[in-house]
Amino acid sequence: MTNFVPTPSVPAPDIVRCAYLELVVTDLAKSRAFYVDLLGLHVTEEDEDTIYLRSLEEFIHHNLVLRKGPVAAAAAFAYRVKSPAEVDAAEAYYRELGCRVERRKEGFTKGIGDSVRVEDPLGFPYEFFYEVEHVERLTQRYDLYSAGELVRLDHFNQVTPDVPRGRAYLEDLGFRVSEDIKDSDGVTYAAWMHRKQTVHDTALTGGNGPRLHHLAFATHEKHNIIQICDKMGALRVSDRIERGPGRHGVSNAFYLYILDPDDHRIEIYTQDYYTGDPDNPTITWDVHDNQRRDWWGNPVVPSWYTEASLVLDLDGNPQPVTVREEKSEMAVTVGADGFSYTRRNDDDGGRGGAVEGFKLGAQL
Amino acid sequence: MTNFVPTPSVPAPDIVRCAYLELVVTDLAKSRAFYVDLLGLHVTEEDEDTIYLRSLEEFIHHNLVLRKGPVAAAAAFAYRVKSPAEVDAAEAYYRELGCRVERRKEGFTKGIGDSVRVEDPLGFPYEFFYEVEHVERLTQRYDLYSAGELVRLDHFNQVTPDVPRGRAYLEDLGFRVSEDIKDSDGVTYAAWMHRKQTVHDTALTGGNGPRLHHLAFATHEKHNIIQICDKMGALRVSDRIERGPGRHGVSNAFYLYILDPDDHRIEIYTQDYYTGDPDNPTITWDVHDNQRRDWWGNPVVPSWYTEASLVLDLDGNPQPVTVREEKSEMAVTVGADGFSYTRRNDDDGGRGGAVEGFKLGAQL
Amino acid sequence: MTNFVPTPSVPAPDIVRCAYLELVVTDLAKSRAFYVDLLGLHVTEEDEDTIYLRSLEEFIHHNLVLRKGPVAAAAAFAYRVKSPAEVDAAEAYYRELGCRVERRKEGFTKGIGDSVRVEDPLGFPYEFFYEVEHVERLTQRYDLYSAGELVRLDHFNQVTPDVPRGRAYLEDLGFRVSEDIKDSDGVTYAAWMHRKQTVHDTALTGGNGPRLHHLAFATHEKHNIIQICDKMGALRVSDRIERGPGRHGVSNAFYLYILDPDDHRIEIYTQDYYTGDPDNPTITWDVHDNQRRDWWGNPVVPSWYTEASLVLDLDGNPQPVTVREEKSEMAVTVGADGFSYTRRNDDDGGRGGAVEGFKLGAQL
Amino acid sequence: MTNFVPTPSVPAPDIVRCAYLELVVTDLAKSRAFYVDLLGLHVTEEDEDTIYLRSLEEFIHHNLVLRKGPVAAAAAFAYRVKSPAEVDAAEAYYRELGCRVERRKEGFTKGIGDSVRVEDPLGFPYEFFYEVEHVERLTQRYDLYSAGELVRLDHFNQVTPDVPRGRAYLEDLGFRVSEDIKDSDGVTYAAWMHRKQTVHDTALTGGNGPRLHHLAFATHEKHNIIQICDKMGALRVSDRIERGPGRHGVSNAFYLYILDPDDHRIEIYTQDYYTGDPDNPTITWDVHDNQRRDWWGNPVVPSWYTEASLVLDLDGNPQPVTVREEKSEMAVTVGADGFSYTRRNDDDGGRGGAVEGFKLGAQL
Repeated sequence: MTNFVPTPSVPAPDIVRCAYLELVVTDLAKSRAFYVDLLGLHVTEEDEDTIYLRSLEEFIHHNLVLRKGPVAAAAAFAYRVKSPAEVDAAEAYYRELGCRVERRKEGFTKGIGDSVRVEDPLGFPYEFFYEVEHVERLTQRYDLYSAGELVRLDHFNQVTPDVPRGRAYLEDLGFRVSEDIKDSDGVTYAAWMHRKQTVHDTALTGGNGPRLHHLAFATHEKHNIIQICDKMGALRVSDRIERGPGRHGVSNAFYLYILDPDDHRIEIYTQDYYTGDPDNPTITWDVHDNQRRDWWGNPVVPSWYTEASLVLDLDGNPQPVTVREEKSEMAVTVGADGFSYTRRNDDDGGRGGAVEGFKLGAQL
Repeated sequence: MTNFVPTPSVPAPDIVRCAYLELVVTDLAKSRAFYVDLLGLHVTEEDEDTIYLRSLEEFIHHNLVLRKGPVAAAAAFAYRVKSPAEVDAAEAYYRELGCRVERRKEGFTKGIGDSVRVEDPLGFPYEFFYEVEHVERLTQRYDLYSAGELVRLDHFNQVTPDVPRGRAYLEDLGFRVSEDIKDSDGVTYAAWMHRKQTVHDTALTGGNGPRLHHLAFATHEKHNIIQICDKMGALRVSDRIERGPGRHGVSNAFYLYILDPDDHRIEIYTQDYYTGDPDNPTITWDVHDNQRRDWWGNPVVPSWYTEASLVLDLDGNPQPVTVREEKSEMAVTVGADGFSYTRRNDDDGGRGGAVEGFKLGAQL
Repeated sequence: MTNFVPTPSVPAPDIVRCAYLELVVTDLAKSRAFYVDLLGLHVTEEDEDTIYLRSLEEFIHHNLVLRKGPVAAAAAFAYRVKSPAEVDAAEAYYRELGCRVERRKEGFTKGIGDSVRVEDPLGFPYEFFYEVEHVERLTQRYDLYSAGELVRLDHFNQVTPDVPRGRAYLEDLGFRVSEDIKDSDGVTYAAWMHRKQTVHDTALTGGNGPRLHHLAFATHEKHNIIQICDKMGALRVSDRIERGPGRHGVSNAFYLYILDPDDHRIEIYTQDYYTGDPDNPTITWDVHDNQRRDWWGNPVVPSWYTEASLVLDLDGNPQPVTVREEKSEMAVTVGADGFSYTRRNDDDGGRGGAVEGFKLGAQL
Repeated sequence: MTNFVPTPSVPAPDIVRCAYLELVVTDLAKSRAFYVDLLGLHVTEEDEDTIYLRSLEEFIHHNLVLRKGPVAAAAAFAYRVKSPAEVDAAEAYYRELGCRVERRKEGFTKGIGDSVRVEDPLGFPYEFFYEVEHVERLTQRYDLYSAGELVRLDHFNQVTPDVPRGRAYLEDLGFRVSEDIKDSDGVTYAAWMHRKQTVHDTALTGGNGPRLHHLAFATHEKHNIIQICDKMGALRVSDRIERGPGRHGVSNAFYLYILDPDDHRIEIYTQDYYTGDPDNPTITWDVHDNQRRDWWGNPVVPSWYTEASLVLDLDGNPQPVTVREEKSEMAVTVGADGFSYTRRNDDDGGRGGAVEGFKLGAQL
């Protein structure tokens, strides 16, 4: 029985968008090679312990902070709110929820002003801020435009054991659900939730949590993503490509998942759709629809379901991970009785089960 | 010990390029739905038993003949030669080789004139012709240009047990090797061979044969191939996507393998490189290089190694299949002792073996 | 001296986005050939007098209404508001402005419910609605995806004599300015204004008005726009390509302008940037920056500055056109004393003036 | 009356392809900035006076030599031949033609061996060589792959007064004509001629000559060319974009023309078609077809017709330029009586003449 997060009596802060993630990495030089040399993110500022990175079209100080630390983890999921007053609103909101809250007028990272950080009811370190240092927006700096250029931060993805509980909490916080994955027993496996007018600012993936599933950057076109794969091949790090490239069923975006030197997962993502209308239709996918995760039916590797990054509390210690009690998406989408399908009643002969088999079974 | 095909004393016919394939299909309507409705090939002519198809930029009558028959198979691998006299040369060449040869002044298919068909030393039905009916080249008919448009026939791929034997025979026939896959014991697993100035007009894949591994069409750009995947998803036939899309190591082309209703394999392929110089460097890949078949290290599905189409003799009966005696590429690239690698001496910690594992092991 | 529109005391309606345009066309069959056969918009509904069209990713009934009539003109610029109550707000707002207002519970077009239409202070027929019939969103119908697919309605562009006046009025209405074009004398030549999180929902172009400058649809990628050009070439209607393709300076989007059979101008547009933050930086371009309209410095054809479509009043009669009194962008960006420049102080020899000449002077 | 070049009695050398151009430039640093920093060509070798450049997929030493000199000009159009013996054949061929011939066993440039240079009957400095230093082919070096990467040398384009004379000479030399532009009076304005299996290795453009019209490099896809434009915009050198981007009628390639610091014209080009069959259809365009030079009907700037680079004799002195006596393409495609057309009998009302006017008349 889901133990829902109570709805506060005070208004939720008015969130604009996901704005940056703070990651703890264990070897800053290796991480720099990955995010700057390989992926081409732009360095706003850096010192011995920290690198502040942004995507091409960003005008705020950073979308990603890499901070050197002993244990690889996500230290903050930061959202921008609509005005300075909304930082107050965020503080009041989480105080009423009984969460641990820390307010810093000078910000928690360089380039950001008055901010509040909380340990939210799902165990994630959330940050809310408005004040920020504007930096050069590189949109038309085509002299800096690499073949695999990352142009925007797109979204976070969080692993949490109880998706309906997390979803209700985020809906209270003003997020709207664009898509989800369910089964006929009413189990929810994942949900995509947005503030800005895309498919998501964050998503909840059912699993042992709280953990960071991934952070996603957007490119302009599909070939930019293919170039990232090609470059990883050229650098002989193709084993750091975890999954894809492919077309998502959910979100319709073209995607790629790669792993940084600490196994933090990065998605490269392009071309989802507009969700800004108040009655934007929510799409529910059947967990047994073999095209939900990959529109082309390509298999999801197990690590994608099982691996994720720890998250930190406000003291910088890893949050304990709670095991998901409900069915796992990985478990229900494979096995003798639980085969996924492309066509529900496939009776046209052909390779029949064998065909389904190769989409689902052992791969070389 | 390889029993090489003797080199004839008469000159080999001067081959221009692979020109068309004749396929026997068991359900013409289903095949039409695949090749015309799904893939958008252009119908030059059709009747109750046969459909003649061509790619957008083709000016000869067809690149693919679909002929209704009882057993799905490849009936002819047809090459265009440089002049009418070269058809005579082909006849003489194969007669000296002691092959069964059939000459038809009126051609074996509509739209083609004087031709010779042979059962070649590897057991394949090869055809050589020069005379052909010119048809409208649709190059600038952008009003007919679909989002996944196939613009050229690119190559054949043949399965044969003894690759060095087949390679020497094709080199005698004037083909040049652009790339191959070998191991340190001297085993050849595959070879790519060309007449036109691309990576191949045909390739030899080591395996039980003679069989047709696949037929490949080219698109202009990579997004055209992605659209074919997307369309197969929309039509809910994603289980007919066998492998890809991906970037080949060999050839450097962007690729996709899909299966027609008879399980004939079709590759969609784009952007290999120029091979027209006489000293074009041959690239030899180590069979243990995990990026040889897919530059991004994505796994090759077993069916891709094991399944292929029968080929017919000149009477229309399937050729018996001979088992490959040498090591199989599938067998040597997986298993406790034969793991493929991306980096030979991976000592940088990270996920280590686990990472290699997920690129090579079980997939959901 | 600008005679500003007064700011009403009641709140402005909360506008979500530009939603559809109603166009009067003189030959419905020719217009259908243009919008459906050439551009591939999807027909939601049609009868003898009217065609309702939508883009691929749209879920409301239509983005474009083509209505047969005696005089080619724009009959309505329709915005979607956030809730039914906002239609009331729109009605109150314009009544206080003293505008002519018409409210129809059953809507002005099929598929739309309770709406208000007004003759706004600039003379444009604006519509505000919330209720709408949802239709199939074709986002993943890749079986219907053409090579030049239009996926979203992007924006309107309106010609008005006094841009600062129009801009202040639209800012009161809740629009925010993303970019504008000015000169050092303080003249504003154009302004781009948005509600949704893109560069614009509508733009004001200084000129004789009120007139419709163009309506814009978005594609996913740049090659989709190139395909539309290629197809117009194949159909031998390349003379209906007015300007482009090119890269805008303003908005950074890749663009094309084409003309429908009534000379209504359609823009095809892709890849502008996110503007959703409250402090999104406004970009001001110097009218003498030769890259403002085309980032590559390609010339703007005179017709693009001078031609536009009439707009109708609520009785269906064309609104009279008022002449712009301020300097025209066309006039100030050409001529002996007013040459545009790429580099202000070009002293590197080369072709010098000749180079500037060919970018600005006579074209074959 | 054309004074044709005699056909030698000895066989023509067997040419493989256009291989490199030697350009004299007046400021090596500026040229390096253009070819290396802007265009991303790869430096094989360089010293104070000379830079040797190659495209990504090249395996011979260079495709372009930039040599510092007092007068900007083209010093050699170099073709690779099929074997060392063909260099002898070239020498004999041109000696019989009575041309000035110079043979150097050590080559004329670094990286090239035994070569012959001639002042050919049209006045161009042609070179023929086989021996060459192989260098690293960067095809899969995606770590070096820029967003506007040039992957192959595609062709030369030469200006000559008498196109039929030049064409017959090049046909004797083994070139085949893929396309040409003529009028109903039998005047030939241009011809495209190939050895490799693309539309051309060189083209003849009718005009005052001998001069170099341009040198062309190929990209993989169209977006690579757009990136080059975008980058030139970012570097504020958009005035060095002379024409395009666009789609050629002739060749069907997507193209762009830009100017180097000495006004040498460079074309960036992608996606023409296969021409390797012996009976590849020759396409003749009517000079009055407004889509011949640009499939979208965009105007050709006058400089593109009139400007070109000098070529040098074997002493390094500029060849004198002979004026074309026949009609000029520029002259016949504009003017009161010679308007180009998209549709020959345009009777569908619309903007009529005005529409044609804006495609052909004055541009801002």
